[in-house]
Amino acid sequence: MKPYTEMTREELQEEFKKLKVEFERYQAMNLNLDMSRGKPCKEQLDLSVGLMDALNSEADLYCEDGTDCRNYGVLGGIQEARQLMGDMMENNPDNILIYGNSSLSIMYDSISRSMTHGVMGSTPWCKLDKVKFLCPVPGYDRHFAITEYFGIEMIPVPMHEDGPDMDMVEKLVSEDESIKGIWCVPKYSNPQGYSYSDATVRRFARLEPAARDFRIYWDNAYGIHHLYDDDQDYLIEILAECKRAGHPDMVYKFASTSKVTFPGSGISAIATSFNNLEDIKEQLRHQTIGYDKVNQLRHVRFFGDIHGMVEHMRKHADIIRPKFEMVEDIFEKNLGGLGICTWTKPKGGYFISFDGLPGTAKRIVDKTKKGGVTLTKAGSTWPYGKDPYDTNIRIAPTYPSMDNLRTAAQLFTVCVRYISVKKLMENMDEAEKQAQEQPQQ
Amino acid sequence: MKPYTEMTREELQEEFKKLKVEFERYQAMNLNLDMSRGKPCKEQLDLSVGLMDALNSEADLYCEDGTDCRNYGVLGGIQEARQLMGDMMENNPDNILIYGNSSLSIMYDSISRSMTHGVMGSTPWCKLDKVKFLCPVPGYDRHFAITEYFGIEMIPVPMHEDGPDMDMVEKLVSEDESIKGIWCVPKYSNPQGYSYSDATVRRFARLEPAARDFRIYWDNAYGIHHLYDDDQDYLIEILAECKRAGHPDMVYKFASTSKVTFPGSGISAIATSFNNLEDIKEQLRHQTIGYDKVNQLRHVRFFGDIHGMVEHMRKHADIIRPKFEMVEDIFEKNLGGLGICTWTKPKGGYFISFDGLPGTAKRIVDKTKKGGVTLTKAGSTWPYGKDPYDTNIRIAPTYPSMDNLRTAAQLFTVCVRYISVKKLMENMDEAEKQAQEQPQQ
Repeated sequence: MKPYTEMTREELQEEFKKLKVEFERYQAMNLNLDMSRGKPCKEQLDLSVGLMDALNSEADLYCEDGTDCRNYGVLGGIQEARQLMGDMMENNPDNILIYGNSSLSIMYDSISRSMTHGVMGSTPWCKLDKVKFLCPVPGYDRHFAITEYFGIEMIPVPMHEDGPDMDMVEKLVSEDESIKGIWCVPKYSNPQGYSYSDATVRRFARLEPAARDFRIYWDNAYGIHHLYDDDQDYLIEILAECKRAGHPDMVYKFASTSKVTFPGSGISAIATSFNNLEDIKEQLRHQTIGYDKVNQLRHVRFFGDIHGMVEHMRKHADIIRPKFEMVEDIFEKNLGGLGICTWTKPKGGYFISFDGLPGTAKRIVDKTKKGGVTLTKAGSTWPYGKDPYDTNIRIAPTYPSMDNLRTAAQLFTVCVRYISVKKLMENMDEAEKQAQEQPQQ
Repeated sequence: MKPYTEMTREELQEEFKKLKVEFERYQAMNLNLDMSRGKPCKEQLDLSVGLMDALNSEADLYCEDGTDCRNYGVLGGIQEARQLMGDMMENNPDNILIYGNSSLSIMYDSISRSMTHGVMGSTPWCKLDKVKFLCPVPGYDRHFAITEYFGIEMIPVPMHEDGPDMDMVEKLVSEDESIKGIWCVPKYSNPQGYSYSDATVRRFARLEPAARDFRIYWDNAYGIHHLYDDDQDYLIEILAECKRAGHPDMVYKFASTSKVTFPGSGISAIATSFNNLEDIKEQLRHQTIGYDKVNQLRHVRFFGDIHGMVEHMRKHADIIRPKFEMVEDIFEKNLGGLGICTWTKPKGGYFISFDGLPGTAKRIVDKTKKGGVTLTKAGSTWPYGKDPYDTNIRIAPTYPSMDNLRTAAQLFTVCVRYISVKKLMENMDEAEKQAQEQPQQ
């Protein structure tokens, strides 16, 4: 098909009529589908049902070091769990603290602690006039929500295929002492599925921040969440790289088993330097006597070791890979070559990032909603929920069934085309109006 | 035996010699026992081993409302768990938020939230020059540690058998706007085992604090932790009483299953007014997507309902009641009538509160430690770890075996007598010295 951007008004009008009919056909189906969040589907959850048998009343609930997992204590997590999470995160168990059921909570708690108590002796952020975070965009809405909640000013930094714009990151952090952190999803990023290049990670480790309490919030949420066996992204390990660069304390790294076993019933961890761990534990020992050791042991027994976990992730990939590929096929078939949008083709993670014509994302999401499919709110991939170009939409293909996903993706492409045609005609109107007004000026 | 306080120096010296020999006999046993924390013993943990079978891979992991407990979501906890915890806490499920594995964390998070965001729109406490908490003493060291960590000034309030000194509480909170809270363990208090009287609870509900963001931190840790079937303390329900008194928002109430099932692997909850819940959820939704629903369901399935839980608590009582009674018997036998100490005889909870002669608690704990038994650090029942009279020691009888507990309690009484005799002789020296110095003045 001819690109929409090259069509005449008459051709666009003709296309618009067709799309209107097509949309109404979907609307008549009374769909009610939800593609708004990156949730595993039922079949993925079923993969971990054995977790429920990993411990029973006959099980030995003692750790290798003799700790009774059923009683109080062990602030940093049981050694076996630190080993497992260490292997998953490519870090030494000595650098690992196991937390509760969510890495998001670790991030929240880290910022909350920095607000009230500073970082390794620095002034508590709540005592400062201004605290800022860099936010690669598009990015993860829950990250941005935390920093917004704490009144931290967010500065968007463009994301490229190899990571954030490092020229901008380097310049900003070296010049502005009020910049205390940067949100990163370095591998299979949310929402693009991009992975930071070696050069990007090396530049991160070599940042020279003006603020000595600046920390990289390295949310490696999809570290082992590959879609393919034979074509996987690789990421330089950031703790080791920071150490090599002489900045061992500059990074907090986060991960969890939320999208490995059961979201909300998994275990999470932070990996960071010895100095940071001491700083964190000084706070943590007031917040808790220790997290759920039985669940830590349950995960260790279920996986055995990292090889069990990697094998397990292959099964996840087998379930969700066809979903990603189907969505990409439908996008290619229905939207390819129209000149109205782009989308990413990730090799891992949970999302596809879609960009439409400027000023269309909100209307596409609204239109799709009217057709019966809920997408992630347009704008949510930007700080304060405000996408200045109104182009970006996050596509979450994992949760719906293949059938529902096919319908939803097709409806979405109809809505993209419908709104884009409308927008192009509006642009023509606008251009004509301006042309008419021109002589009067 | 004649009270030590009525003995002559010679009699004390004689007694001292005997006690020295007796202590050395214990020391030769090379004991290594720990009575420092209120931990359930192995037999208590074994009671809940069925929790490990409550869910398995065959189990239905869906809630009654259709929620798949294995996936993300449900910020406030599943309805079944809110019902169970509501029944345990004597509150409507609508007033309940389920948290993670520890009520201590809820208290920490509540204060942390108040520091950074205030309470229902009040000025964040971190922006105030001064924030104070009232601390009934002796009290729970981990409470005091949280307020100390946040730089909150702690004001001790004497505890009586019917609760804190309410004249003092009423006066202080009505006069001082910087007083933002009070720590309470209202039933089977830590460490005395006292329960607040009806009059005390009614006066709490009718406090007229100068600070509108004043909250009662009502840590009902031992609400169902009775030692006796036929002789139980009763507590007026504080939320209802506050509502009746026209102060529905004045209280946060906390509880958990830590000493019901497995400490660290249980579930916890806050009960509070609708307004407070809204205020809390506005924060909580940034901190987490939801706590561990599978573990919530596991607890619901294990207990069935509150009757199952109450029955379960009877089994706990059967295990620990003999321990309390044995310690009290040994104290009575070895220390009764000596005029050197008092101790409480709780009908529930986890502790016995012991008070020695002024200026002896630290030395008794040190001496007992030299004999091979670790007690809770002297002073820890007071804010900043400083008992101004140096009298109070918290006795935790639940964790050791009966045999070990017998030995530990006996050693403790020897140490109490040894240090008390020593102290009384020192007092005599001091008095004589002062008498000699008198003429020179």
